[in-house]
Amino acid sequence: MADVNADFQYGPGARHEDYELDAEQCWSLLGSSGVGRFAFVHEGRVAVYPVGYLVYGGAVHFRTSPDGTVVNSLPQDGVALQVDAMQPSVQAGWSVLVSGRAEVVEDAHELTTLFGQMVDEPWAGGVRDAFVRVRPERLSGRRVYLAQ
Amino acid sequence: MADVNADFQYGPGARHEDYELDAEQCWSLLGSSGVGRFAFVHEGRVAVYPVGYLVYGGAVHFRTSPDGTVVNSLPQDGVALQVDAMQPSVQAGWSVLVSGRAEVVEDAHELTTLFGQMVDEPWAGGVRDAFVRVRPERLSGRRVYLAQ
Repeated sequence: MADVNADFQYGPGARHEDYELDAEQCWSLLGSSGVGRFAFVHEGRVAVYPVGYLVYGGAVHFRTSPDGTVVNSLPQDGVALQVDAMQPSVQAGWSVLVSGRAEVVEDAHELTTLFGQMVDEPWAGGVRDAFVRVRPERLSGRRVYLAQ
Repeated sequence: MADVNADFQYGPGARHEDYELDAEQCWSLLGSSGVGRFAFVHEGRVAVYPVGYLVYGGAVHFRTSPDGTVVNSLPQDGVALQVDAMQPSVQAGWSVLVSGRAEVVEDAHELTTLFGQMVDEPWAGGVRDAFVRVRPERLSGRRVYLAQ
């Protein structure tokens, strides 16, 4: 860790530090799969729903209902897949934001590959066999922590 | 728990169940404070950032930088404050979404009250003394679990 005291200044939140993550760090934290949140615009409002995601072919994918709110809002530009991890006991955490275009995967060969890669069923009930792909156009992340 | 097998059907995700939460359950899960995610539109893209929030006076509040992306995007209608909790080991979790208008709190008396209620400093560094209020217009939530 760098010498965080070098930048120490008095004032609100002065002991709290944060730094930007580069693309490599963001991909590393996303891993190959996990649980994140898909954020998009539906009927003029931002909606945010947890999803189990799969990173494959440089894009983020998740399964959802073929006739639900998500699919009915696609394709859509400028949506987000957000993933974070929090450690409340030490007031630390990180957050990664994948921003880009989301669309339903239609190609049969690609669907077969995705179903083969996906380990877990979606946690929610009902038929959720539509695959959504988010192609990253911007990738950003930040780590925050309480400097001692 | 209700007899989940009554609705059992074969097919993808058939053992996974979910149900909607009512407003009382949503407020109960939000509690008086916690860590959630603020989702809004900035330059045509959905942005999602973790925030420590405070529920007060029927609205959700959080602190942020007075000259950052969030404040520069306000006031804004149809934004979201999302909170969830996950139990990956049992593929269960819940998610609550507060949807409404977000604006910077300007009233001095209200600011004094909010600073008095806020327990934790923001985890990120820098001056973050602008209070944002999200007035709930819609409140929704869902619980998901793996039926045995």
